[in-house]
Amino acid sequence: MNPPLQTWIEQLRSGDVRTLARAISTVENRAPGWSELLKALFPHSGKARVLGLTGPPGAGKSTLVDQLARFYRKQKHTVGIVAVDPTSPYTGGAILGDRIRMQEHFSDPGIYIRSMATRGSLGGLARTTADVTTVLDASGRDLIMIETVGVGQDEVDIVRLADITILILVPGMGDDVQTIKAGIMEIADIFVINKSDRDGAENVEREIRSLQSLAIRNDGWTPPIVKTVASQGLGIDKLAGAISDYESYLQEKDLALTKSVENWQERLVEMLRDALLDKARGLMTDGDMARYAAEVAEHKRDPYSLVEEIAANLGKS
Amino acid sequence: MNPPLQTWIEQLRSGDVRTLARAISTVENRAPGWSELLKALFPHSGKARVLGLTGPPGAGKSTLVDQLARFYRKQKHTVGIVAVDPTSPYTGGAILGDRIRMQEHFSDPGIYIRSMATRGSLGGLARTTADVTTVLDASGRDLIMIETVGVGQDEVDIVRLADITILILVPGMGDDVQTIKAGIMEIADIFVINKSDRDGAENVEREIRSLQSLAIRNDGWTPPIVKTVASQGLGIDKLAGAISDYESYLQEKDLALTKSVENWQERLVEMLRDALLDKARGLMTDGDMARYAAEVAEHKRDPYSLVEEIAANLGKS
Repeated sequence: MNPPLQTWIEQLRSGDVRTLARAISTVENRAPGWSELLKALFPHSGKARVLGLTGPPGAGKSTLVDQLARFYRKQKHTVGIVAVDPTSPYTGGAILGDRIRMQEHFSDPGIYIRSMATRGSLGGLARTTADVTTVLDASGRDLIMIETVGVGQDEVDIVRLADITILILVPGMGDDVQTIKAGIMEIADIFVINKSDRDGAENVEREIRSLQSLAIRNDGWTPPIVKTVASQGLGIDKLAGAISDYESYLQEKDLALTKSVENWQERLVEMLRDALLDKARGLMTDGDMARYAAEVAEHKRDPYSLVEEIAANLGKS
Repeated sequence: MNPPLQTWIEQLRSGDVRTLARAISTVENRAPGWSELLKALFPHSGKARVLGLTGPPGAGKSTLVDQLARFYRKQKHTVGIVAVDPTSPYTGGAILGDRIRMQEHFSDPGIYIRSMATRGSLGGLARTTADVTTVLDASGRDLIMIETVGVGQDEVDIVRLADITILILVPGMGDDVQTIKAGIMEIADIFVINKSDRDGAENVEREIRSLQSLAIRNDGWTPPIVKTVASQGLGIDKLAGAISDYESYLQEKDLALTKSVENWQERLVEMLRDALLDKARGLMTDGDMARYAAEVAEHKRDPYSLVEEIAANLGKS
């Protein structure tokens, strides 16, 4: 380990926010040294509690995350927030919102908010989010909240990174609650009905209960349903209570490590896929790719045999 | 090529719908023989026109696609529809809807509708959709429509498969139109404002125009804006006209092949990634993976160095 890296890590671990921001940018942008940095930081990670919060657009996720941050700050915990806003056609409001939120918390270095809006064309957002979480974790933050709009598989992959996953719903979703798939039912450790002062909160609760009766969790936990009105700070203490109940349950049943091993099995496969892709790209020039693509586009060559050939030759060179 | 495969392909190319359904299932489920089937079918593909249609939930995509199918059926074209409904927490209404649609068209073998609702954990839906499209194409369908809810990167990848991409918007989206990112502006070859009898259609049009003035397309095409009321069949002829205008433009400027080569460059990289992942998985037993994951979860080993090691060793065995 070279001295500058060591210095960097010492500054990061001392809580310096500018070093933290620089380290996160290095990892997020895959700037030179990102891999060495992560390797050096990894042994310092694993101490933070990681919450994943997801829900449909308009569920009030940001407000709820802010209120939770305030709650934990009062208990002197340091907080890191990763707000994931995939660059997608129909979302995008989060960026401006996050700037406003960052200003509001500007005076408190105990809350660090990072907005992630870019996404690689091969769906690397979940991996980058995981790496940014590792940096925040190694920097000594007590609590990390990953917040994302729950609209696709990438988002499900992102919340899977968390130790505890919270699904935020709102009254008035109509039939949408009925269409929540088994996948998300298995992932959610805690349900929140936010804006619960609105009509229909009981309907949402009934829907969740009836879906829960169909889903069997491996760990035997029955996810509680917590009602909040985040904009008025109502129910935040109950949510924090539910979070700590689940943590106690994991500890009691010795499930935290099992959950982490399962997550790492998936993440290692994804990391390996990315590493192999980099390797494959390194072995092929842009000219090769253009030539292959032209042959396939002109139907002179079938892409299935071609890809098999390239993959078979990969080890030989 | 073994005789049964040859027979299968002959039946498929003769237009037999049950063989088509079986071939699609084989490819979609990666059932034994899927790879050989695709290799054999690929040389027969490339003749169909492929339309990609995307838009937010509630934009009336299915109705519009049905109306287009009716329009092209009157012109004696055969039609294949791939309705992609990613298994995501907040969509899922399409399955029942598709069953109803399929019943409606049941008496006409000239329209074949396939609903795709599953998604691999590593985001392979775009690839499977591409493969299903190849089967439909090779089976001799004149026109293939890929319909997907435009909510994430996967969906953008799916509509990228198409020769012509149509973005469907509706009045009353509020600020959502403003948040349409440059990415989708570049992809859309034609804009549709559906439900254009509602208030606010002019607003949507103005928004699109002002976003268009910011986006520069490589091919020099200015995407037209077509107003429809799909539920009443209004504007469908104009949309078909816009589609054929764009096709003429591509032909005139000799751009169709360029577009196809660009798409194949991306697809080949994705296919290669999947092939390498399969290779990597084949080299590691479940026991290896579980052991590695446990070492990382216990922070005895950093995952970044581990993955580099595995990737480096891949060629050696």
